[in-house]
Amino acid sequence: MIVRGRWVVKNYREVVEDGAVLVEDGRIVAVGPYEEVVREAGRGHDVVGDRNKLVMPGIVNSHTHISMTLLRGYADDLLLQEWLEKHIWPYERLMKPSDYELGALLGVAESLASGVTNVCTMYHYHPERSEATALLKTGMRGTVGIAIFSWDREGTLKNFVDAVRRFHGREGRIRIASSPHAPYTVDPELWRESETLRREYEERYGDGGPIILATHLAEDWREPEMVRERFGVEVPDGSIVKYLDGLGVIHEEFLGAHGIHLNDLDIEILARRGAKIAHNPVANMKLGMGYADTPRLLEAGITVGLGTDGPASNNTLDMVETMKFAALINKPLKRDPRVTPARTVFRMATEYGAKCLGYEDLGVIEEGYRADLVVVDMDRPHLTPVYDVYSHIVYAMRSSDVYATIVDGRILYEDGEYTTIDIDDVMDRVRKRSMELYEEVRGG
Amino acid sequence: MIVRGRWVVKNYREVVEDGAVLVEDGRIVAVGPYEEVVREAGRGHDVVGDRNKLVMPGIVNSHTHISMTLLRGYADDLLLQEWLEKHIWPYERLMKPSDYELGALLGVAESLASGVTNVCTMYHYHPERSEATALLKTGMRGTVGIAIFSWDREGTLKNFVDAVRRFHGREGRIRIASSPHAPYTVDPELWRESETLRREYEERYGDGGPIILATHLAEDWREPEMVRERFGVEVPDGSIVKYLDGLGVIHEEFLGAHGIHLNDLDIEILARRGAKIAHNPVANMKLGMGYADTPRLLEAGITVGLGTDGPASNNTLDMVETMKFAALINKPLKRDPRVTPARTVFRMATEYGAKCLGYEDLGVIEEGYRADLVVVDMDRPHLTPVYDVYSHIVYAMRSSDVYATIVDGRILYEDGEYTTIDIDDVMDRVRKRSMELYEEVRGG
Repeated sequence: MIVRGRWVVKNYREVVEDGAVLVEDGRIVAVGPYEEVVREAGRGHDVVGDRNKLVMPGIVNSHTHISMTLLRGYADDLLLQEWLEKHIWPYERLMKPSDYELGALLGVAESLASGVTNVCTMYHYHPERSEATALLKTGMRGTVGIAIFSWDREGTLKNFVDAVRRFHGREGRIRIASSPHAPYTVDPELWRESETLRREYEERYGDGGPIILATHLAEDWREPEMVRERFGVEVPDGSIVKYLDGLGVIHEEFLGAHGIHLNDLDIEILARRGAKIAHNPVANMKLGMGYADTPRLLEAGITVGLGTDGPASNNTLDMVETMKFAALINKPLKRDPRVTPARTVFRMATEYGAKCLGYEDLGVIEEGYRADLVVVDMDRPHLTPVYDVYSHIVYAMRSSDVYATIVDGRILYEDGEYTTIDIDDVMDRVRKRSMELYEEVRGG
Repeated sequence: MIVRGRWVVKNYREVVEDGAVLVEDGRIVAVGPYEEVVREAGRGHDVVGDRNKLVMPGIVNSHTHISMTLLRGYADDLLLQEWLEKHIWPYERLMKPSDYELGALLGVAESLASGVTNVCTMYHYHPERSEATALLKTGMRGTVGIAIFSWDREGTLKNFVDAVRRFHGREGRIRIASSPHAPYTVDPELWRESETLRREYEERYGDGGPIILATHLAEDWREPEMVRERFGVEVPDGSIVKYLDGLGVIHEEFLGAHGIHLNDLDIEILARRGAKIAHNPVANMKLGMGYADTPRLLEAGITVGLGTDGPASNNTLDMVETMKFAALINKPLKRDPRVTPARTVFRMATEYGAKCLGYEDLGVIEEGYRADLVVVDMDRPHLTPVYDVYSHIVYAMRSSDVYATIVDGRILYEDGEYTTIDIDDVMDRVRKRSMELYEEVRGG
């Protein structure tokens, strides 16, 4: 397959004008000027894209809960605890495993149509019907975090082991992550126990890729206090990261979602250990949690990816929108429009996102890399004229400008059509089930 | 014409399910359940929309510079003064009147495709080719602010008078505003003089509607200092509004764009005088200027509309996106997700926007009101399921979900097609001219 564009954006600083990408067996085998690539390829290739298009690496959503599309817009503009306890959790208690998969199918569809090729997600697990099965069915790439909680230590650890055995490394696209939920829902002993298990299973199943630790970190400013109250443990130097580091869980395969309320010591330890952060500007703003200081994290050398968080707190899975929020969120706070410029944000959404999920051969367009690609239609009023493609991708592009989405060299979405999803059927089922669940939760 | 939707959102709190709007001679003559409206209407009406659609009032962009589409993405991530002096102004000095109109045509196209029916804009004026002529040609509604500066007092005041005579009230859609540019670019005497002129011409041309005063206010925290330095005038009590009030320009027809750096006294005076604010969250963030405290302004009783500002500092004219930014911008600052809830933001983008521009019969769907309507396609993955339409409009909808845009009962955009704009021609001309200007500014 040849993927063609007026611009091929290889990475955060290299653009090939009138370029093309040659894809074979799911890998990028050449990238360069269109005429050269065609010559090298020989005859018989399908061409996706044309001279009005832009080709870029697939976008990585480094933190979300894709099944939560069912709860999109169900409860908004509420305080976090009220939102969770009075609205989200009562609804979720009524959901069945088939709902986890159904919500995830809609989430995959929405993601693909927005240029997202790879997602790190976390939700309730079921071996037959959940996020992992939705990813398998649709051809999308994803890392599925198996949530681990103190209130069901046995059950959730068992889920993790089961998920690794069943799904880790499947089709080279699916990975499992260990997801102790958060510092305030997982006791110190369970952090240690889950980490031992993660290392053990990574050793046994490492052929499928790293098994990362994907958790929530410093979303709420009250975390040190909550840890003390719930587990009777003092957080040293007020540093939640030092606390976790003492439990041996801060390392290169640690991915903390949010990273809002971090002090100097937190940041120093994260940087020293090579830990990663998934920044979720839209959900952080929507829940009133605060502003992650991404310029500072990046300056400290921390790899920061971007995420949408779940559709109940965003309310979309729109990573194109998230790029714009990520670029803007810190400028007024610092009264400096130069922070998080367009190229940096582009890099966070692609190359850094892939690194957050433990991929070494993904996130840029380079020979030998996996062929996760997005083709963008630039022939739009709001993308006219073009001076700088990075500026357009971050500040002007909309998800709806995505023309095609390719994972492992396979077209999953093109010109409004899905190749692996019966979207009308999925939407009908979501509408039906969401209304049933709504009636039930209201009635209860 | 009958405009039909599964939801007809009349205003910020009333929704008619399976409803319709009957439009005759540019006015809304009935709104209610579809069957009732059809019965009342009798035969022979065109129907726009269907049972998958949502109908809402046209969105009002209460502050922008639509001609600046030509500079979209031309310079980003720079400090305000450097951005203006080294990039924007040198480019603008090379622009010709035909470029003002060309940029405005693209801006109108982009706006209509995003559900914007009414815009308050401000740019360089030319009687034959500028924003006003673009609005006239395309059928869009707009208020054109004629910029007034101390560095060309005679010329800019003359422009204002000329524009009122030529355009104010034309086709019931075009209005002229007096736009002394900002406190720091207009000296006290010119504020007084322009205000006298505004009142005089409003008296003479008032049949065309109010001639509002649309200016920039408190975008920069250094404004009181700049006024003192440039004009040798002390700003009383550090209140830029008290200063302007002393010049007699704070009143019900005053619309100040931005309103970021306002103190208690500023807010008290604005509220007491019935003055209005146009809030531009995206541009304020992009230029690093700060966060307008919209919850506080609204609580004080001030009418706050929403704007995009120009496409050089946004970089789009996307008011749907602006609604989401407006809803989110203050939540983390106040650590309270309850501020600026979805319905309030919806109201700002429609009803309050119309009030900002001096319209009494616009901004809600009500019998006797002007028929500026938007039809939204709700049959989209990212708008599924639907619990609350206000939540979806503000938090999940994208501009690309707009199916049709209607001004004064006339369809200007439907299903991707413009009825009054040759969009391919406009885009081609913008591409060509922007590259010529770019070469010229680079060469100079």
